[in-house]
Amino acid sequence: MLTAGKTLPTHAVCGRRAVRINAVAAPEKAGVLNVNRNENFGKLRAGYLFPEIARRRKAHQEKHPDAKIISLGIGDTTEPLPKYIAEAMAKAAAGLATREGYSGYGAEQGQGALREVVAGTFYSGLRTADEIFISDGSKCDIARIQMMFGSKPTVAVQDPSYPVYVDTSVMMGMTGDHNGTGFDGIEYMVCNPDNAFFPDLSKVRRTDIIFFCSPNNPTGAAATRAQLTELVNFARRNGSILVYDAAYALYISNTDCPKTIYEIPGAEEVAIETCSFSKYAGFTGVRLGWTVVPKALKYADGSPVHNDWNRVMTTCFNGASNIVQAGGLACLQPEGLREMFSMIAFYKENARILKDTFTEMDFKVYGGDDAPYIWVGFPGKPSWDVFAEILERCNIVTTPGSGFGPAGEGFVRASAFGSRENILEAVRRFKEAYGN
Amino acid sequence: MLTAGKTLPTHAVCGRRAVRINAVAAPEKAGVLNVNRNENFGKLRAGYLFPEIARRRKAHQEKHPDAKIISLGIGDTTEPLPKYIAEAMAKAAAGLATREGYSGYGAEQGQGALREVVAGTFYSGLRTADEIFISDGSKCDIARIQMMFGSKPTVAVQDPSYPVYVDTSVMMGMTGDHNGTGFDGIEYMVCNPDNAFFPDLSKVRRTDIIFFCSPNNPTGAAATRAQLTELVNFARRNGSILVYDAAYALYISNTDCPKTIYEIPGAEEVAIETCSFSKYAGFTGVRLGWTVVPKALKYADGSPVHNDWNRVMTTCFNGASNIVQAGGLACLQPEGLREMFSMIAFYKENARILKDTFTEMDFKVYGGDDAPYIWVGFPGKPSWDVFAEILERCNIVTTPGSGFGPAGEGFVRASAFGSRENILEAVRRFKEAYGN
Repeated sequence: MLTAGKTLPTHAVCGRRAVRINAVAAPEKAGVLNVNRNENFGKLRAGYLFPEIARRRKAHQEKHPDAKIISLGIGDTTEPLPKYIAEAMAKAAAGLATREGYSGYGAEQGQGALREVVAGTFYSGLRTADEIFISDGSKCDIARIQMMFGSKPTVAVQDPSYPVYVDTSVMMGMTGDHNGTGFDGIEYMVCNPDNAFFPDLSKVRRTDIIFFCSPNNPTGAAATRAQLTELVNFARRNGSILVYDAAYALYISNTDCPKTIYEIPGAEEVAIETCSFSKYAGFTGVRLGWTVVPKALKYADGSPVHNDWNRVMTTCFNGASNIVQAGGLACLQPEGLREMFSMIAFYKENARILKDTFTEMDFKVYGGDDAPYIWVGFPGKPSWDVFAEILERCNIVTTPGSGFGPAGEGFVRASAFGSRENILEAVRRFKEAYGN
Repeated sequence: MLTAGKTLPTHAVCGRRAVRINAVAAPEKAGVLNVNRNENFGKLRAGYLFPEIARRRKAHQEKHPDAKIISLGIGDTTEPLPKYIAEAMAKAAAGLATREGYSGYGAEQGQGALREVVAGTFYSGLRTADEIFISDGSKCDIARIQMMFGSKPTVAVQDPSYPVYVDTSVMMGMTGDHNGTGFDGIEYMVCNPDNAFFPDLSKVRRTDIIFFCSPNNPTGAAATRAQLTELVNFARRNGSILVYDAAYALYISNTDCPKTIYEIPGAEEVAIETCSFSKYAGFTGVRLGWTVVPKALKYADGSPVHNDWNRVMTTCFNGASNIVQAGGLACLQPEGLREMFSMIAFYKENARILKDTFTEMDFKVYGGDDAPYIWVGFPGKPSWDVFAEILERCNIVTTPGSGFGPAGEGFVRASAFGSRENILEAVRRFKEAYGN
């Protein structure tokens, strides 16, 4: 407590101890809340995927204290920030101690200069700065987007996909119960080697919301211009909202794959796009992202989604950290961009090394060319078993495919985020355990 | 676009332009979404309060370009950060450019060391570190708390109160429509001079959730130990969850007012507490707060609220910025604490100066002793009119009381956050306009 053993100014001292002695009395009755648990939380399965993996990793480490575990599990950046970008944040932080450099609450939508440069860098001629909302990351924005949509819309997701789309849909009450395979009410759009990881839209039921991630987490597949045109037209025919997760767009090498959904004509009337500095600049722990809500996107009653999103961001959020936004600005200056692309190139080379290894060992392996993820097939094997086997035999953490949805069963995801040394050591262990 | 005019590595260049020429085709049909707007958003009134004030301030400035406007409106810190705290963040930011200093995703619940020191500083002997969740601020946590509760609970708020409690309740569908005075379904607990700003609980209808802020924003009233004991027992009798907002607790001087709800016996079975570094350390733009969810808090079915909150924080949030958490750690070291308390003392002196001014001018004035807010009565006058008049006559921005709820009508809130120079100048203008 602030009372105890600290040399604080007198006004800070709270009289708790003295007064409390008199005030202590048994509370009126045993505290049993008469509030029901939100039933939607009862539908959720176990823990969120990555904390569960962390738990199993920890248990393995405790069992084998000497094991040098390498994580190719959660897609977490490992390389130090480019100096130019870190220094910009250090300068902003130090500046907060000066009258000129200090700032309090900023616009909840983000600093004007950062919105401008995000628009200019990623959406030139396609979107304007007032359609860009800066945030503390895409994961957080997805939850807020769901809060905006409410409990009534129906939802489709790629299967497999980033678990947050489904989990937040369940939390908001957009789904029924889990039926053993997936959640009732969710339209799972199967993406597997048979359809080159792009769903057969002729078989997809209409939903109000379609979550779509490209390049895809976890399969690593990037949709082509033709595929995305098909997707946008599907959304337009159905009057559905496309929530397009472009968090890995800059990992695309294939020139036939757009880096933003707004390259597709008509997308501005159906699509929200979310993106992040996490995997571009190593900002996973720094926290900065953005979401684009075009003004042309309008609900059935003609009201702009933009207005409601602005209301969510001003009411449920208070702006990204001013220090962190200074880092975002630095990322998008010429020197920052160069450093960012060199970091992306580094992780892409990791992906190539991993993919080549599995290819050489005659595994069915996908992704890795336009994304920092490798999707490795273990046909017929439960993916949590594969996860456990790789952890046991190689001391390597991967991510079990089934954690991303029913169609992820039989696969594991290997992340290319790691130091070169660790990636090469992982490759050595994989070859030792699985090579011929 | 990343294609144009920048010297980026080749792999970054996207073939959009070349390809797009062939791909451009009219989208399949005019984009009319077949998705209904979340009806709860239609219930909300105008914009969130503070953006609305910012809009009016901007209009005033445009009309009077030479006016030197002083803002006592939004409670936004103005004083530079203590060097010790800013330097800790600068060091953390610079360190991210080194292999030893780099970190990616942290625990979504916050860094262990920070959770420990928050528990030790504010809740010693009352709560444990694993009950503390570090976040990007209380406002964001309140929205997440509401997402956890879902649409079914009923809600009570102090009237007047911080608008986020009501607005997020409306968004989540916990209320009916606005009836011209307030929202149907919300229990407004009137706090005014007649009841010394503590609600008459014998007249309050039972609800599932009770939002309670002490020291109160906007009235500046801090509840005493006896009052909080009454409140906790009221919640226990009714089996209600108390969401206790303690964001201004360290502004309390009155030794009879607890600085955390957990000083009240039995509170751990009914209360969630949220708090923030914003007004303690000038972190309004830096973004750091925390929420306490005791493990003893259990829904009617016996399941711990703690579990669901952990699920929300891991699924809808990705941890506070690592740089910012370093700042929080610094705040709670002996030197940081000294600096933090000296900043609080500075704003408290501002509050005293403002309160004395209104007292001397024979206004009915409240708050200011245990909080950074002064609550000034203008009986019988609509508070938006008073807001407009003060802006017009004094070039001073206040906050109209009605923005905080129906019982705020006839009051304006003056914030004590400002430089001493601005506070003294504001006092001079007030006296010129309203003195005898």
